[in-house]
Amino acid sequence: MNYYNKLERHAKKLSRLGHLNAICGWDQAAIMPNGGAQARSEAMAELAVISHELATADYLEDWFTKAETEDLTPEQRISLLALKRQWTMQNILPADLVEQQSLTGSQCEHAWRSQRKENDWEGFKANLKPVVELARKEASIRAQATGLSRYDALLDIYEPGMTSAVLDGIFADVKSWLPQLIQQVEAKQTSDAVLPLSAPFAIEQQQALSLEAMKLLGFDFEHGRLDISTHPFCGGVPTDVRITTRYDESDFTSALMGVIHETGHARYEQGLPKQWRDLPVGEARSMGIHESQSLFCEMQLSRSSSFSRLLAPIIQQAFNSKDSSLSVENLYLMNTRVKPGFIRVDADEVTYPAHVILRYEIERDLIEGNIEVDDIPIIWDQKMTQYLGLSTLGNFKDGCMQDIHWTDGSFGYFPSYTLGAMYAAQFMAAMKKVVDVEAAITSGDLSPIFAWLETNIWSKGCTLSTDELVKQATGDTLNPRFFKEHLMERYNQ
Amino acid sequence: MNYYNKLERHAKKLSRLGHLNAICGWDQAAIMPNGGAQARSEAMAELAVISHELATADYLEDWFTKAETEDLTPEQRISLLALKRQWTMQNILPADLVEQQSLTGSQCEHAWRSQRKENDWEGFKANLKPVVELARKEASIRAQATGLSRYDALLDIYEPGMTSAVLDGIFADVKSWLPQLIQQVEAKQTSDAVLPLSAPFAIEQQQALSLEAMKLLGFDFEHGRLDISTHPFCGGVPTDVRITTRYDESDFTSALMGVIHETGHARYEQGLPKQWRDLPVGEARSMGIHESQSLFCEMQLSRSSSFSRLLAPIIQQAFNSKDSSLSVENLYLMNTRVKPGFIRVDADEVTYPAHVILRYEIERDLIEGNIEVDDIPIIWDQKMTQYLGLSTLGNFKDGCMQDIHWTDGSFGYFPSYTLGAMYAAQFMAAMKKVVDVEAAITSGDLSPIFAWLETNIWSKGCTLSTDELVKQATGDTLNPRFFKEHLMERYNQ
Repeated sequence: MNYYNKLERHAKKLSRLGHLNAICGWDQAAIMPNGGAQARSEAMAELAVISHELATADYLEDWFTKAETEDLTPEQRISLLALKRQWTMQNILPADLVEQQSLTGSQCEHAWRSQRKENDWEGFKANLKPVVELARKEASIRAQATGLSRYDALLDIYEPGMTSAVLDGIFADVKSWLPQLIQQVEAKQTSDAVLPLSAPFAIEQQQALSLEAMKLLGFDFEHGRLDISTHPFCGGVPTDVRITTRYDESDFTSALMGVIHETGHARYEQGLPKQWRDLPVGEARSMGIHESQSLFCEMQLSRSSSFSRLLAPIIQQAFNSKDSSLSVENLYLMNTRVKPGFIRVDADEVTYPAHVILRYEIERDLIEGNIEVDDIPIIWDQKMTQYLGLSTLGNFKDGCMQDIHWTDGSFGYFPSYTLGAMYAAQFMAAMKKVVDVEAAITSGDLSPIFAWLETNIWSKGCTLSTDELVKQATGDTLNPRFFKEHLMERYNQ
Repeated sequence: MNYYNKLERHAKKLSRLGHLNAICGWDQAAIMPNGGAQARSEAMAELAVISHELATADYLEDWFTKAETEDLTPEQRISLLALKRQWTMQNILPADLVEQQSLTGSQCEHAWRSQRKENDWEGFKANLKPVVELARKEASIRAQATGLSRYDALLDIYEPGMTSAVLDGIFADVKSWLPQLIQQVEAKQTSDAVLPLSAPFAIEQQQALSLEAMKLLGFDFEHGRLDISTHPFCGGVPTDVRITTRYDESDFTSALMGVIHETGHARYEQGLPKQWRDLPVGEARSMGIHESQSLFCEMQLSRSSSFSRLLAPIIQQAFNSKDSSLSVENLYLMNTRVKPGFIRVDADEVTYPAHVILRYEIERDLIEGNIEVDDIPIIWDQKMTQYLGLSTLGNFKDGCMQDIHWTDGSFGYFPSYTLGAMYAAQFMAAMKKVVDVEAAITSGDLSPIFAWLETNIWSKGCTLSTDELVKQATGDTLNPRFFKEHLMERYNQ
């Protein structure tokens, strides 16, 4: 067996341990009884230790050196690159830094749960400072190893190849038209009369509706399930994708849109290339591309007017109701309602990028050392006012303390959310040149739409760079004009 | 850290990997979509390899030698014995034998699935012979290491301390009165008019009834769940016990009795000593003692007349029916119906031991080399005729090919089923001296009953030998007269 094959076997072993971790993690979040928590954490921690030992084994460096000189097929050479990237990522940080980060992050997160309620910025700040210090340390180590700037080195974990220079350009473009668009749409929508939903909506009926929506979107139930968890997510493994949602009896749309979003993630996982299963080159391309698939389903498809026409009768049947709040028109009005707000996770499609850009600009400057933790609230307020016309002065809990992100020291993935929305718009525009998307939605047979995604995105796994993937699929690298055109067409016509 | 502590830490690591295996195995059996099977098997096989490497690591022998000379508490010394037994068990067989057994067993089992339907003894025999040969090899290796006879060395895996000499005495006793008792009960029951159930019974209602029964029996839902699987089992870990059942719309009693049986297993697991968690000394005593807990719930409790009085109104409410087939009297008649049959798993409480004794006598002689595979059908027919008055001549599929046992080469655990029934009867007799069992059942508060089991059985884990455990709990080592008295009292008064 040559060294490339040895590396493949080693990676598959790690991937299989990852499989056990994914299933036990899903179980923990979705169905485990509370009393099992302590023992489960211990068992999963034990697996993490074993996986880490394997991933950082001494002999691997030598194997890589030797594999690189071997006579490999072009495909194997691409796979070797992906293997090496994974190995480098897993070996780059000293163990004591990782341990310190974990400890400091847990403390900050734990305290945040009560500090947020009390709007206690001073208390939170004291915990966030060491978290940021450690993230800067991590960024320096990664920067040194990659030759990237500090923030870019973190960005690279989630979006290989993306840089803040590129992001700055893209986001500058968005900032040049978004605040005005938001105002225009808000003004336009003041005359819309959205009928409130006639709650309650029984959970069993919502569950049946969710399964219907998943079927419509081609979820493969031979290779996955839908369950319930407090925080919806897409977990499991490509052969067995576990998505979750939570049901609110007063509003079925949150579970339904959540399920549609997670189904987008799930179809990507289910559609990853089988020939590269259990290897890094067979994994999803990046966090932004993953998000593009969920947002393609949720934003590009489900919030379109033609999709409302397709879904309305299914919703009416699910709840056995012809209430006018469930009409095509009202569902579309609900799905496209725009309203600036403080909280990112509650934001609509149009205001969402403002939240992301704000967060990106702050975390970039924080990691690069251009601002300090003390500066965050003032900058947050300035940007919030500028982008969304809302002030957060003194309102920390709805400002920079609004969510759990940052508390654990993970910086660099916020841009992925809006990159995902942009890729989704660009994919839709390219798809429409060869697929009659409207006709597919009207017919209720969405398979031509997903066939395009399967061919152009899913089946590629990690064999192409993100730029190359997007270029081959759409004829262009990332271009924010498709996202702008999409928003203009849907919201400002 | 001394060597005993090192061994403890090592055992906990193994136990935690076992936790992941238990949860992923439960998932596989209960809820995994079919398409996930291949990847799941690969992932679990990878874990098995890692666990095996850990369990058989070179340094352990040295650690045991050193730990034995250390200054340990009496409790630690008992724990060390249990650790050493586990280690010896895991190291005794050469890897190539285990691999051969796995392969040959899989082939035999796979072919059996079609051969049984076709009553193809000749085909089955050809596959069973190498399975038995390998089991004899295993028995020889174990016999040499333990000083036991070949069959006793296999028995020792499941029932440490039990020997065929003891079993022969016990089973000779049973054989002296059981065939006659069966005939008497059959004659007596001919005049009983058992009303047939008015099917169907909706699965949701059966599920709700199952949960009610589990609550009644004190199942701790903070540390466990009920789900559905093709073959009911009790899995998971002590902090999170997963029991399963399957529902038959035409007959709710099979799921209900199954759930009650598995709840008995579950309470034992949930009640194991917390201070010894993740260590061999904290595990269940033996397969027979485990079975005693399930049979205590199913046979001693649930099939008693007082329990029928407790359960009948619950059943009637669950199905919202006052049908006379659901009366106390009719439920009791159904639960105590005796009828000799070919199939062990369908057998009632009275005829069941005959199936076990028959199987034990054949497997004992087979492993000891006193008979050959070719002889099985004739002997099976002779014993079946002698014990139950039924001939299986030429009817292999309802005789020695009736179930999956033996196909994978596991011999030595059949006696545990009837040992379990005997221990259960003996525990009940001892319990009745200090607990008013009838009053507890009548009141619907069964906690005094389970408190006795918790104190005397569950909390002991593996700290006592089976003989010592039973003696401390009941004042006597295993004595089959309690089982006889129980059957006589319930069935022949």
